[in-house]
Amino acid sequence: MNRKRIREFGYVIGKYPTGVKNKITDVPGVRVGHWTVDEGQQHTGITVVLPGEDNPFLKKYTASGYVHNGFGKTCGLIQVEELGTLETPIALTNTLNVGKVADALVSYMVEETRREGVEISSLNPVVGECNDSRINRIQDRAAGEQELRAAIAAAAMDFEEGNVGAGTGTICYGLKGGIGSSSRILKIGGRTYTVGILVQTNFGATEDLRVDGDPVGRRLREKLRQSGSGSSADDRGSIMTVLATDLPVTERQLYRILRRCGVGIARTGAYTGHGSGEVMIGFTTANRVDTTGNQMVESCLRLREEALNPVFDATAEAVEEAILNSMTAAGPARGLDGAWYRSLSEFLGKEEL
Amino acid sequence: MNRKRIREFGYVIGKYPTGVKNKITDVPGVRVGHWTVDEGQQHTGITVVLPGEDNPFLKKYTASGYVHNGFGKTCGLIQVEELGTLETPIALTNTLNVGKVADALVSYMVEETRREGVEISSLNPVVGECNDSRINRIQDRAAGEQELRAAIAAAAMDFEEGNVGAGTGTICYGLKGGIGSSSRILKIGGRTYTVGILVQTNFGATEDLRVDGDPVGRRLREKLRQSGSGSSADDRGSIMTVLATDLPVTERQLYRILRRCGVGIARTGAYTGHGSGEVMIGFTTANRVDTTGNQMVESCLRLREEALNPVFDATAEAVEEAILNSMTAAGPARGLDGAWYRSLSEFLGKEEL
Amino acid sequence: MNRKRIREFGYVIGKYPTGVKNKITDVPGVRVGHWTVDEGQQHTGITVVLPGEDNPFLKKYTASGYVHNGFGKTCGLIQVEELGTLETPIALTNTLNVGKVADALVSYMVEETRREGVEISSLNPVVGECNDSRINRIQDRAAGEQELRAAIAAAAMDFEEGNVGAGTGTICYGLKGGIGSSSRILKIGGRTYTVGILVQTNFGATEDLRVDGDPVGRRLREKLRQSGSGSSADDRGSIMTVLATDLPVTERQLYRILRRCGVGIARTGAYTGHGSGEVMIGFTTANRVDTTGNQMVESCLRLREEALNPVFDATAEAVEEAILNSMTAAGPARGLDGAWYRSLSEFLGKEEL
Amino acid sequence: MNRKRIREFGYVIGKYPTGVKNKITDVPGVRVGHWTVDEGQQHTGITVVLPGEDNPFLKKYTASGYVHNGFGKTCGLIQVEELGTLETPIALTNTLNVGKVADALVSYMVEETRREGVEISSLNPVVGECNDSRINRIQDRAAGEQELRAAIAAAAMDFEEGNVGAGTGTICYGLKGGIGSSSRILKIGGRTYTVGILVQTNFGATEDLRVDGDPVGRRLREKLRQSGSGSSADDRGSIMTVLATDLPVTERQLYRILRRCGVGIARTGAYTGHGSGEVMIGFTTANRVDTTGNQMVESCLRLREEALNPVFDATAEAVEEAILNSMTAAGPARGLDGAWYRSLSEFLGKEEL
Repeated sequence: MNRKRIREFGYVIGKYPTGVKNKITDVPGVRVGHWTVDEGQQHTGITVVLPGEDNPFLKKYTASGYVHNGFGKTCGLIQVEELGTLETPIALTNTLNVGKVADALVSYMVEETRREGVEISSLNPVVGECNDSRINRIQDRAAGEQELRAAIAAAAMDFEEGNVGAGTGTICYGLKGGIGSSSRILKIGGRTYTVGILVQTNFGATEDLRVDGDPVGRRLREKLRQSGSGSSADDRGSIMTVLATDLPVTERQLYRILRRCGVGIARTGAYTGHGSGEVMIGFTTANRVDTTGNQMVESCLRLREEALNPVFDATAEAVEEAILNSMTAAGPARGLDGAWYRSLSEFLGKEEL
Repeated sequence: MNRKRIREFGYVIGKYPTGVKNKITDVPGVRVGHWTVDEGQQHTGITVVLPGEDNPFLKKYTASGYVHNGFGKTCGLIQVEELGTLETPIALTNTLNVGKVADALVSYMVEETRREGVEISSLNPVVGECNDSRINRIQDRAAGEQELRAAIAAAAMDFEEGNVGAGTGTICYGLKGGIGSSSRILKIGGRTYTVGILVQTNFGATEDLRVDGDPVGRRLREKLRQSGSGSSADDRGSIMTVLATDLPVTERQLYRILRRCGVGIARTGAYTGHGSGEVMIGFTTANRVDTTGNQMVESCLRLREEALNPVFDATAEAVEEAILNSMTAAGPARGLDGAWYRSLSEFLGKEEL
Repeated sequence: MNRKRIREFGYVIGKYPTGVKNKITDVPGVRVGHWTVDEGQQHTGITVVLPGEDNPFLKKYTASGYVHNGFGKTCGLIQVEELGTLETPIALTNTLNVGKVADALVSYMVEETRREGVEISSLNPVVGECNDSRINRIQDRAAGEQELRAAIAAAAMDFEEGNVGAGTGTICYGLKGGIGSSSRILKIGGRTYTVGILVQTNFGATEDLRVDGDPVGRRLREKLRQSGSGSSADDRGSIMTVLATDLPVTERQLYRILRRCGVGIARTGAYTGHGSGEVMIGFTTANRVDTTGNQMVESCLRLREEALNPVFDATAEAVEEAILNSMTAAGPARGLDGAWYRSLSEFLGKEEL
Repeated sequence: MNRKRIREFGYVIGKYPTGVKNKITDVPGVRVGHWTVDEGQQHTGITVVLPGEDNPFLKKYTASGYVHNGFGKTCGLIQVEELGTLETPIALTNTLNVGKVADALVSYMVEETRREGVEISSLNPVVGECNDSRINRIQDRAAGEQELRAAIAAAAMDFEEGNVGAGTGTICYGLKGGIGSSSRILKIGGRTYTVGILVQTNFGATEDLRVDGDPVGRRLREKLRQSGSGSSADDRGSIMTVLATDLPVTERQLYRILRRCGVGIARTGAYTGHGSGEVMIGFTTANRVDTTGNQMVESCLRLREEALNPVFDATAEAVEEAILNSMTAAGPARGLDGAWYRSLSEFLGKEEL
């Protein structure tokens, strides 16, 4: 499949340098895997973000969650907020499938941790979602335990974007959405750090779409209408944002960083509609919390607060680019009602747009 | 089974009159059902609170959630907070079983709503939990779709307390905990209203237990030790509180009421330990939100803010009493490690306590 | 003074119609007044938003506050959040002057309310702020009781924008900022409603400025540097946003609307820097809360949740336009360090930009 | 003045050892000072808590705030929450006096910091309050700049409790309230730490008062009525709680600790009425944030999460004891309406109670 990225169309989003892959997996240790079903009336999947190689339950990640618009069913954020830690991979799927995938994460983690001699009796699975019901028969809840294990098994340092995994059936600005990613490199205090973003895009009204500031949506809406293609009249559907970094930040600082993800979303044109559940989850690979030790007082690192500015700025542009990548990488897909949701790639760079 | 309540021991908690049953089901329309497994190493279950007879998805309930201590896995609160509504029954179960029960709620609600000609593509199941792993082999996740349907089918205007449903395997103050309930009647502006509470109790250090102010825990700890019974050294494990009312309150006012549930918990002696996830969920049967109509502006009712004081006061005492009822109604149970967790009923009213 | 607005330069921000004045005072009953000092080293002031003609303490306004970035000193939001009401005019001033202006609001309200035979013993003044210390000797705290009374006395249905009142000494994107306003008209359920915005702008890095999507800041930064003018390297300083409406919304719905103000800010290019305290305060003139009556249960109105989408959308574009108006209306001003902060009006429409 | 403490009446609250003074000033470096006016119709004051000897603006304190019930006017918490730091002494006063005292803190801090060669242009004064209008003519706002300076000048390692400073005019459970304090010593990982509490008590309905669990309020209400003394029918008025510690905790952990202050309040019997603004502010003298350095990455300490349990427990009992101390230390005072608000000391230990 020919999965293009926004930079291939000549757009350079923002001013910070990207990582080598320009993906969330530029953050050392982070891997992403998909499980996809794309046949009959089932067009959905699971995308997992694995924060590192070792068991996250035994050595937890400093983490934070932020609810930008709470019309959503993400589970696990209550404990992330209270304790500031993540103890499972992050899984993304469709709205009605959250329960099954959360349960599958429990199975997987209980088994994995048992291997290390620890029996889990309490676990906080983190699962996010978008509503892919315009393309996928969502009531089927196609993703379960085997499917989660397949996604985890497929996790790697590189991965596909577009209509794959949890992005298989999503729609963004009335075009085909999907999974997108981007990264930025920051130099702070003589060291180099990475901020990586992965999004599952399923939001936006067609007319609002902006590509690097250019309001292409106003023209696109007309073109889609003329061609009888699908489109979105309202901003609804949701976007999930996962942020990974190796910056030495606390959970409070991660929270501040996550709140700038909304800036990236806004730059693509959307106003965050009532029905668009927008949730951000972030973690750092610095400041791990080792629960197996017996230290009563642990040392952790904190970025000087003023040094957050470039992090905020880079995060906003990485989110903007990840959204655009999710759209250019997505091929067209047919809705359950027969309408075709087309790819942004079909239009970008064409004279008439 | 001989399930006693705290008033049978001569204690009258607080000053407000109780409803006829002194249970959450005194609130008109509210029903409670259990599914229980209590054999082999499985000692767990599901307890459901049904807010009314008709479909809650089509005509939602004004609702609120409050996280008193977020070491917990309750799902569904993000949307309850954003939209102020509840659209499913509330289910309680064990910690690792939340995913399966949430998925079962989706199955049930999709089917129920389909019968009324509406296909659900987005649903926010609300499921709370306590960790019953000292008595129950929690990794089994015994509760699934059939079990949820059994709990719902069993829902009635009266119901058992103690070690039943989601309270089958819980431990409270080192004694056997379980499901407990209580209610209060309030007269405001010439009308009569009910506040009903249902708790799933699984918290508290033995030495901290107070019964109507009396610090019996200090004496109990010694007695339990002498008899080789189980007990709790720390305040951990969690308590779930469900509040139902027919008061004309908004979601903000419900939130304020829920925050007083912690007062009732504190009165039984606990300090809300790090590991005790304490979550409150409340709804009113007034101020329903009809999603099937086409009114752009709806009217709703709001209690005069000053009139909340007796509601706060009554809520605190109903929670205190519901906790005590969960303990007196519970029979003794054996932990997976062989220790017996005894019933408060065995000790109350005895001279030596 | 020649105070231009963004539309005079040919820009039409968004798609919704504006009110007659295209200001917050298009909302019936709302008035705005300024007190300004602009001499010596004092370049600051007070801007007040009066929600209506009668005493707001006796008949409160349904209201909400939202903290977008909490590096700020706004006072009064704790109670607004808890009770969902506003009981004073909203005053804006400089950062170090919040205490004095809050105290002045107490004096004013105690006196006003005494006239109606009620003695105030508890009052929640709401005062927002921006840090104007690059232009104003902020340590002087020039605004006190007389000055607040002057601002209130000057309150009218029309008012100036730019460097006036609380906007006298502010800087926005390295150009002169100030007070700006805009409004939008919405038709919902056959009735017409107004959303009005007033901003005090003091944020943004020069290079990030976008005017209706066009990244003019990148070119501007160079031009300012060449001319030796002031500019902003970082996004810091703050923006206060006041929203007024006559929509029948609850405090929860107002909160949701306020959260979309950040979209308007983002559209002007900023990423909400660490040092940019961004706070939103909103009220509706519907759903007043009459504390003088003796009704135990009050009726209030609630917009159908789905009907919020155009409100969100209109709010975002009104904020964007209000920010731009604050800049075009502002004349240049000299910083305490001698640098001139120039007006956006000097550059817009010029070929070389 | 004969200022008794609750332990002098034979009550030992809780199980943890107290510090030497059993006051907040047992935390090394912490000092407390009062300014009091107690004549004519003015019966109010200021109480300041100074976290340490050096300038808190230049080297900030890790801090947190928690709003237990937001019917209150405390200022400064927005920034404390966002940045996790405290940069001024904490001042307590009466409700209508918050603006003047906040402004006075600005004057004081600008001057102090100027002495060290730094000009403050942004400062976040933290001021809490209770409503003492039943005893004090609160509209006078007697406390201003000189008065704040007097309170700070008087700050010492020991200090009076009862009706002094910000507690001069407060009423607690219908008896005279005031300033109270207590502390607890914790041994964690071989080291000794202190948790100190200071409260300004102005809450509670008479009938609800419990002293170490004993519901004395029920008897007291009758006695007060018979003697024609003042009393409180409702739980309203507020309580401010300041927590100081030298524990190596982060701001998130401080927040968790602060949330247990409500347990201590509940143990004295109150249900936290609608009109009782209850706000907690806490800081640690560990984990200072040095803004004068140029380190991009700072190291900080974090207590192992499980080790928080004794801290929670000790905090709850210190708050309970501090409240009781505020009452026993307070002498009787006459209300503006002529009623006498009596001292708990008059009743404790008497047979008839």
